[in-house]
Amino acid sequence: MVTSVVLINVQRGQVNETAQRLLEIEGVAEVYSVTGEYDLVALLRFANYEHLAQVVPEQILSIPAITHTNTLMAFKCFSREDLQQAWDIGVE
Amino acid sequence: MVTSVVLINVQRGQVNETAQRLLEIEGVAEVYSVTGEYDLVALLRFANYEHLAQVVPEQILSIPAITHTNTLMAFKCFSREDLQQAWDIGVE
Amino acid sequence: MVTSVVLINVQRGQVNETAQRLLEIEGVAEVYSVTGEYDLVALLRFANYEHLAQVVPEQILSIPAITHTNTLMAFKCFSREDLQQAWDIGVE
Amino acid sequence: MVTSVVLINVQRGQVNETAQRLLEIEGVAEVYSVTGEYDLVALLRFANYEHLAQVVPEQILSIPAITHTNTLMAFKCFSREDLQQAWDIGVE
Amino acid sequence: MVTSVVLINVQRGQVNETAQRLLEIEGVAEVYSVTGEYDLVALLRFANYEHLAQVVPEQILSIPAITHTNTLMAFKCFSREDLQQAWDIGVE
Amino acid sequence: MVTSVVLINVQRGQVNETAQRLLEIEGVAEVYSVTGEYDLVALLRFANYEHLAQVVPEQILSIPAITHTNTLMAFKCFSREDLQQAWDIGVE
Amino acid sequence: MVTSVVLINVQRGQVNETAQRLLEIEGVAEVYSVTGEYDLVALLRFANYEHLAQVVPEQILSIPAITHTNTLMAFKCFSREDLQQAWDIGVE
Amino acid sequence: MVTSVVLINVQRGQVNETAQRLLEIEGVAEVYSVTGEYDLVALLRFANYEHLAQVVPEQILSIPAITHTNTLMAFKCFSREDLQQAWDIGVE
Amino acid sequence: MVTSVVLINVQRGQVNETAQRLLEIEGVAEVYSVTGEYDLVALLRFANYEHLAQVVPEQILSIPAITHTNTLMAFKCFSREDLQQAWDIGVE
Amino acid sequence: MVTSVVLINVQRGQVNETAQRLLEIEGVAEVYSVTGEYDLVALLRFANYEHLAQVVPEQILSIPAITHTNTLMAFKCFSREDLQQAWDIGVE
Repeated sequence: MVTSVVLINVQRGQVNETAQRLLEIEGVAEVYSVTGEYDLVALLRFANYEHLAQVVPEQILSIPAITHTNTLMAFKCFSREDLQQAWDIGVE
Repeated sequence: MVTSVVLINVQRGQVNETAQRLLEIEGVAEVYSVTGEYDLVALLRFANYEHLAQVVPEQILSIPAITHTNTLMAFKCFSREDLQQAWDIGVE
Repeated sequence: MVTSVVLINVQRGQVNETAQRLLEIEGVAEVYSVTGEYDLVALLRFANYEHLAQVVPEQILSIPAITHTNTLMAFKCFSREDLQQAWDIGVE
Repeated sequence: MVTSVVLINVQRGQVNETAQRLLEIEGVAEVYSVTGEYDLVALLRFANYEHLAQVVPEQILSIPAITHTNTLMAFKCFSREDLQQAWDIGVE
Repeated sequence: MVTSVVLINVQRGQVNETAQRLLEIEGVAEVYSVTGEYDLVALLRFANYEHLAQVVPEQILSIPAITHTNTLMAFKCFSREDLQQAWDIGVE
Repeated sequence: MVTSVVLINVQRGQVNETAQRLLEIEGVAEVYSVTGEYDLVALLRFANYEHLAQVVPEQILSIPAITHTNTLMAFKCFSREDLQQAWDIGVE
Repeated sequence: MVTSVVLINVQRGQVNETAQRLLEIEGVAEVYSVTGEYDLVALLRFANYEHLAQVVPEQILSIPAITHTNTLMAFKCFSREDLQQAWDIGVE
Repeated sequence: MVTSVVLINVQRGQVNETAQRLLEIEGVAEVYSVTGEYDLVALLRFANYEHLAQVVPEQILSIPAITHTNTLMAFKCFSREDLQQAWDIGVE
Repeated sequence: MVTSVVLINVQRGQVNETAQRLLEIEGVAEVYSVTGEYDLVALLRFANYEHLAQVVPEQILSIPAITHTNTLMAFKCFSREDLQQAWDIGVE
Repeated sequence: MVTSVVLINVQRGQVNETAQRLLEIEGVAEVYSVTGEYDLVALLRFANYEHLAQVVPEQILSIPAITHTNTLMAFKCFSREDLQQAWDIGVE
């Protein structure tokens, strides 16, 4: 599983429409409108990198209302389950 | 439900330890180590803003290894379910 | 009570009109035109975060003359009354 | 009445103490700890500019825990009362 | 006396005309065209802050050729006379 | 006459001392402590550029408390007298 | 094949040693010392993203002399061979 | 051999076409579309600097779809072969 | 002799024409087209500052193709001849 | 002939010493101390790029007092002689 957090700016007045359009794209799991320098944060989850490398430039970056993106690729996902296991085996 | 995306920088060599420590804090749902200008992205979910306003400065910003944070407050969470409903009732 | 300080830039010649328009929005308590990199500073006070999360993007960010906003969410409001209490009970 | 909004950064772990100390200074009306690039926002109100020009550099900028300040001087304070009057006399 | 140093950018080819126009405004004492990131530096002197707070936004910021301003408010004016006095009474 | 506006940052707590020291240097006409990103603004006036080119690096930039300077060289000084003359001879 | 271009800054005097050390890491194909804001550019090639996501944070970012990295993930590699094929089949 | 790494931004929707066009230019060895602040990374290899100094401004910077370039000139290319030799002769 | 190094940006495709036009201006000694954030570097040499202060804003900054300039005024020119003299008289 | 313009920052109080030291390096033709964000500007002229690529990192960037450099490689040197020829043959 390859995960990516995409920080997105859109044209004025296009926040809701762009969020909806992003959700229609395969691999886009969650979208948030947010305070601060970015307008939207999208969480992407793909089975492999090749799929992400095809979808992001062809389907996401090509949405006309999107004016800027900052794609953060996840090296690792830390979860409470891992944490629990760590505690179970005595790792601090 | 109040959601926040926190972009985090940590001291060199403290990425894994800080991610684990964040997960032990109530309200921290997911943590990712990422490429780019930030080291970690944390997703926070709280029942109300008052709870978040207490936990973020007192428990997150006070972790010594964290050198910089950028807290994005979510105005709205867009989900596939909403999208489905929109399609169902013929909204474009 | 959820408080927010919004730093705002507006189009040339729209400072006074935008300030007046902001004051008509529920939750906008005070507006100042200021020196420096921002044109206006607005103080927002809402009964809960959900209300703020609806009003800011839908009513404030949608004012056409506003070209840029930086929304600072208050974690805590420090007041002289708290200070007085602290002195009363001997806290330094 | 001269009003100023001061955006303040403080040393790690000094947010609460600095906020309390600011409130002890004459002219400091309100202090908020906030999300984003600044740690504190202080509202200052003085009877005249000469007073502010003495207090800000001598009492505020000299607090050791304060590492950076951005002082925004208010040109004008817009209030609901002004707005009400404007409506009353038919000004748009 | 309230003094302010205003760093100003103007549209291409409007440096001389804007400098002349600034000098016609009450309170504008000196204007310099300069090297570097700014085009003009204006020295403003007003009898009180209220006057400055009215003239700067209404008469200076409203000049169409001015594209950007950075208003520095003087806390204190240091002069050779003060210095002389300091030397006279033995202060170093 | 060669005029220069120098925007200056100094070490914490050294604003007043540095301003006094600057005034002792030949060619330094006025010094202001100011709000905003700079601490001091100095106006320099020299009979010729060679003198300025010697004094600025050797006497001003060498003051230990000065951490950063931005030297703006004046191309031209616009004065009310010039303006009066322009009006007198019918120039717009 | 997953390719990444990593822009790297190192401590003074550590350019050559860091370049050599990078080349010893599996997946690091080429390293260049360069003019400009970065010190080194490294080309990484891995069989899959999981491998890269393990090697970059654990083996590259952990080199003590490296002070800053900017990891650019390649979406697509354009080669002369593809170009030739495009010409062969008449695509412009 | 003179090598250069060129970081390139292109107009929206012109990534693939610009990459193809770059590959048609003599000296352009590889082109990658990438995540992050740049759109494309091009590796250039020329027999001498004079050739590069002619091709880059005349053939690369003149492509209309290219909006910004950052040309990093390689001082040195570090390769596994050099590394092997260093090990062979006992250099650390 | 007053020397200045001017870092210049020009409109797309205007590098060669602007360089030629700059050379026609009295006082412009050398012009280079360069890699990096600037397009041209011009070396200016004038007999006195007054001449430079007239030519730069009136003849250089007024070239329509020039979009941005950064004028660095030389305090001192260090030459091999000075160095030789220093060696000759035993100064290190 | 390969020409380079190097924009240099040095440690406080090291401007003159660093300028002298730069002039002792083969290929360094001229050095200027300047106003603005840089301390020194050095003009480098080498017979070929390989020589420059060896001298800049090994002899210039290694001077301890130098804290930052920005190396601009000249694509082309425009001279009055070229200009004269262009006029002679009727090129505009």
